[in-house]
Amino acid sequence: MNKKPLILVTNDDGISAPGIRTLISIMNEIGDVVVVAPNSPQSGMGHAITLDSTLFSEEVHFDDGPQKEYSCSGTPADCVKLAVRQILGRKPDLCVSGINHGSNASINVIYSGTMSAAIEAGIEGIPAIGFSLLDYSWNANFEASKTYVSTITKHVLERGIPEGIVLNVNIPNIEKDLIKGIKVCRQAKANWVEEFDKRKTPQGKDYYWLSGKFVNLDGGEDTDEWALANNFVAVVPTQFDLTAHDFIKDLNTWNLNE
Amino acid sequence: MNKKPLILVTNDDGISAPGIRTLISIMNEIGDVVVVAPNSPQSGMGHAITLDSTLFSEEVHFDDGPQKEYSCSGTPADCVKLAVRQILGRKPDLCVSGINHGSNASINVIYSGTMSAAIEAGIEGIPAIGFSLLDYSWNANFEASKTYVSTITKHVLERGIPEGIVLNVNIPNIEKDLIKGIKVCRQAKANWVEEFDKRKTPQGKDYYWLSGKFVNLDGGEDTDEWALANNFVAVVPTQFDLTAHDFIKDLNTWNLNE
Repeated sequence: MNKKPLILVTNDDGISAPGIRTLISIMNEIGDVVVVAPNSPQSGMGHAITLDSTLFSEEVHFDDGPQKEYSCSGTPADCVKLAVRQILGRKPDLCVSGINHGSNASINVIYSGTMSAAIEAGIEGIPAIGFSLLDYSWNANFEASKTYVSTITKHVLERGIPEGIVLNVNIPNIEKDLIKGIKVCRQAKANWVEEFDKRKTPQGKDYYWLSGKFVNLDGGEDTDEWALANNFVAVVPTQFDLTAHDFIKDLNTWNLNE
Repeated sequence: MNKKPLILVTNDDGISAPGIRTLISIMNEIGDVVVVAPNSPQSGMGHAITLDSTLFSEEVHFDDGPQKEYSCSGTPADCVKLAVRQILGRKPDLCVSGINHGSNASINVIYSGTMSAAIEAGIEGIPAIGFSLLDYSWNANFEASKTYVSTITKHVLERGIPEGIVLNVNIPNIEKDLIKGIKVCRQAKANWVEEFDKRKTPQGKDYYWLSGKFVNLDGGEDTDEWALANNFVAVVPTQFDLTAHDFIKDLNTWNLNE
């Protein structure tokens, strides 16, 4: 009988969020689970790390599950670093992050704390997956996600993922029997058109709230946005070598040294 | 005579840092400069954006230069968003970020606030460059950087950069006459091996400081780390489509729907 895999679970919505509680319950069926997750919401933190401030971590208990759990005052990337070096003292066999309350498809991957945790694990050489459900509400219904999260996790444990790649999984917010299946995709080209809501403090000083409208600029039917709009679970293999390799040759023709 | 380009300058070390003051003085020779930069250091912020808190911005004056300047309470990515939508009300012709006090080569690009500002500009469709000098000290000497920053900036203004790509420029911390020139590179494969410095508060509670040792895992002579170690200025074309395109075909053989 094989030894059960050691699975590190983290997220960016905070350790008490329903999304990570669901993810923990799924992972308890698959392996030995250790949770190291932020003690408060960290959405939009991108790949931030804590350099100029102290990190606190403590063991916590939320339910009667077999997992061990630690909350951490840092970012999702901090949680992965602390887990590997300090709490586990070794690399887990897998790191899963999420289930995020809200989309991390297309350009959202750049701003995503959920995916930054998965990418941090990838940098450390750990197979990693970020899971997100397209429902931003705290009371999101994760029922339909369960089978897909479990299936994809088991495939990754069985096959591994090549070095330098993690998986970004987004799940449409629809009833389970409407989901058509899993589709491997590329990241859609999209952006946010920001709108700043300008207000005044009671003392008369201007301030802003950041908000905006998501704009999909990509008509391709091989993108994550297309898959999600067409009721598929979208899986994008995601890399952290950001080099635009195809442009190196062109850039060399610029003769920057002349 | 051509109209002067409108150049947005930002950084992650804060608006008063010597690196951005140097960058502003170089850009004043090239175009009309507007500075929108954080009012405090934001190193290690990755691509964080401010979703759950207010943003403050005000016009400031640091010297007698012709530039207009605004400090902002947000992250580097926030600064670019605020500049484009609220302060400028239009896209600038170029966005430059830096000069960072410290390396953003290899995997550091992932954690970099400097590069997140450049990438945010790239997402908005603005040609963008992040500049970094390999000296973490506040009193870093930016003299040798000036010519290279100016040369690369002028090339970008003349030729443009393809959509989806920004430039990550790192400059070795050596005397100007020792620099051998500019080299177009790929991002080296590297990581940080973290060491957590565990301490106790006066009240006896454990806490940690994050620190670590940089490890270059890449022997390639076409990498930014190699170029910098061999006295070249390293230019890496950097993209924010994180899709690992080459792995899509393999992933499709996993038959995730069976």
